[in-house]
Amino acid sequence: MAVYTDITEGELDAFLERYNVGRLLSYKGIAEGSENSNFLLHTASGSYILTLYEKRVDQADLPFFLGLMDHLAGKGINCPLPVHRSDGTVIGTIAGRPAALITFLEGMWPRRPTAAHCREVGKALAGLHLAGADFPLTRRNALSFDGWRKLWGAARPRADEVEPGLSAEVDADFAELAEKWPADLPLGVIHADLFPDNVFFLGDELSGIIDFYFACNDLFAYDLATCLNAWCFEKDHAFNLTKGTALLAGYQSVRPLSAREVEALPILARGSALRFMLTRLYDWLTIPDGALVQKRDPLEYVRRLRFHRSIKSPSEFGIEPR
Amino acid sequence: MAVYTDITEGELDAFLERYNVGRLLSYKGIAEGSENSNFLLHTASGSYILTLYEKRVDQADLPFFLGLMDHLAGKGINCPLPVHRSDGTVIGTIAGRPAALITFLEGMWPRRPTAAHCREVGKALAGLHLAGADFPLTRRNALSFDGWRKLWGAARPRADEVEPGLSAEVDADFAELAEKWPADLPLGVIHADLFPDNVFFLGDELSGIIDFYFACNDLFAYDLATCLNAWCFEKDHAFNLTKGTALLAGYQSVRPLSAREVEALPILARGSALRFMLTRLYDWLTIPDGALVQKRDPLEYVRRLRFHRSIKSPSEFGIEPR
Repeated sequence: MAVYTDITEGELDAFLERYNVGRLLSYKGIAEGSENSNFLLHTASGSYILTLYEKRVDQADLPFFLGLMDHLAGKGINCPLPVHRSDGTVIGTIAGRPAALITFLEGMWPRRPTAAHCREVGKALAGLHLAGADFPLTRRNALSFDGWRKLWGAARPRADEVEPGLSAEVDADFAELAEKWPADLPLGVIHADLFPDNVFFLGDELSGIIDFYFACNDLFAYDLATCLNAWCFEKDHAFNLTKGTALLAGYQSVRPLSAREVEALPILARGSALRFMLTRLYDWLTIPDGALVQKRDPLEYVRRLRFHRSIKSPSEFGIEPR
Repeated sequence: MAVYTDITEGELDAFLERYNVGRLLSYKGIAEGSENSNFLLHTASGSYILTLYEKRVDQADLPFFLGLMDHLAGKGINCPLPVHRSDGTVIGTIAGRPAALITFLEGMWPRRPTAAHCREVGKALAGLHLAGADFPLTRRNALSFDGWRKLWGAARPRADEVEPGLSAEVDADFAELAEKWPADLPLGVIHADLFPDNVFFLGDELSGIIDFYFACNDLFAYDLATCLNAWCFEKDHAFNLTKGTALLAGYQSVRPLSAREVEALPILARGSALRFMLTRLYDWLTIPDGALVQKRDPLEYVRRLRFHRSIKSPSEFGIEPR
């Protein structure tokens, strides 16, 4: 939640010379996005988001991320459209950083998601999974099992400072997940970070999905499990069954889950909770206080992990096993 | 440079019910303004800034600040216009804070001001001084002599931590300023904080003056001296005579200075440098590292103070005494 790099009007004018967006009218650094610097631009032709990719994003991944948005927007998914430059490319440079200009999507992300929001998110996620089917590029999920192990290797020695007993708890999760992780479920392009601040609504209508900078190829049902974690828990860490039911029904109304995907949801949700707990824990332990990067509490996801360990059946998420 | 308070769509919808601005389309926290939380709103009728007044702003002063913008905009000054609510008032409440909706001004603030910018700022400042003449409300300058003494009382014991010898240097400034401060120069409503980030340009044209939250009644020439400090020094702390000449000529093209105002510029510039050094020093010593409030280096203004102590004549700013 920060602007890491400020830019001058001269830099921006030079950058925009390669685009056909009309005269620059204003630009404001916006307090959204936790990895990159984002500016909201007004030009004679409308509103745009300019993203400067900071060092946490690997430049080699940019063609995948921006190409995916282009592909999905072409399929009618409400996502930002990268603006093409006069030479046809979509990645430029400003202030020494790779940068892209994308269309601005109106809409508000729900600070307090309702079951109706969850249903729409489920539908949109399934639509995204289907629309990505013929996207030609692929990207390995850097935050899958191997990535988790790396993060845990770095964070484990100090994990008990954050919560006594955490290192033993999580060691057990790793052992069980390694044994039970499903290998052969349907996979394809997933969003991998579809939290409420990445989904915009206008009234009850979902108006946009943003921030494709964790998108990759992985299990569809894992993406859905991430949404269960991100959308269906209350501030008191209780799972909201109404929201879970709505999210899953919304998803299935567009892409029905197989019996094996349904069965795998508890272990996938546990893995997804582990993934977000680990990145939060790593940041918590390594980012100095006062840095611009927003640190999120890893304990929120320790709570979700504990919930998922206790799950006996996917029916506890709001879906009946078949 | 931060958003201190986030708001929900529900809170914002309830707030906007009292305004006639059309349907809310989006709102983004913007990384501008160092005292308040600011959001850029798009609605069916256009773009607006929503400002939530945080605790550093005294609520009792809001009618002065907002009334002044209303008054100046009515006189043709390019400044935001507070949007009136259906009951005619301009101050509402959101997230427990007083808040106002103002029109959005297109334009960019100059990260690297040129002499041409300085000339336009001089003209606009003089125009503002003239346009405020018949504004009926008054506000004492809380950051004049008494205010400086209070800040210095709090910061002095630790001033030498920031720069050895600073406490003795500044004690001498206080003694000399108390003796030489001009008492009977023309006064009226001043902006009091007209730094580059508060002035927007579209090309060479000044398109807007914002952030009236230090505005008050004080000496016009003191406001001009603040602009000399804010606009005419280079990153290496050298005074740029070309910019000073342009700023002062621009001002005089709209409101000629009296001989006594010209003569007083060096002492006023020294007082103004002391004022900004003191608020920065106070923040430097009291705001914890990692707080959201941006801390600016007080030493930039120690350098300006030293420059002003050495000034023999206003001609060193780019204006001949008469």
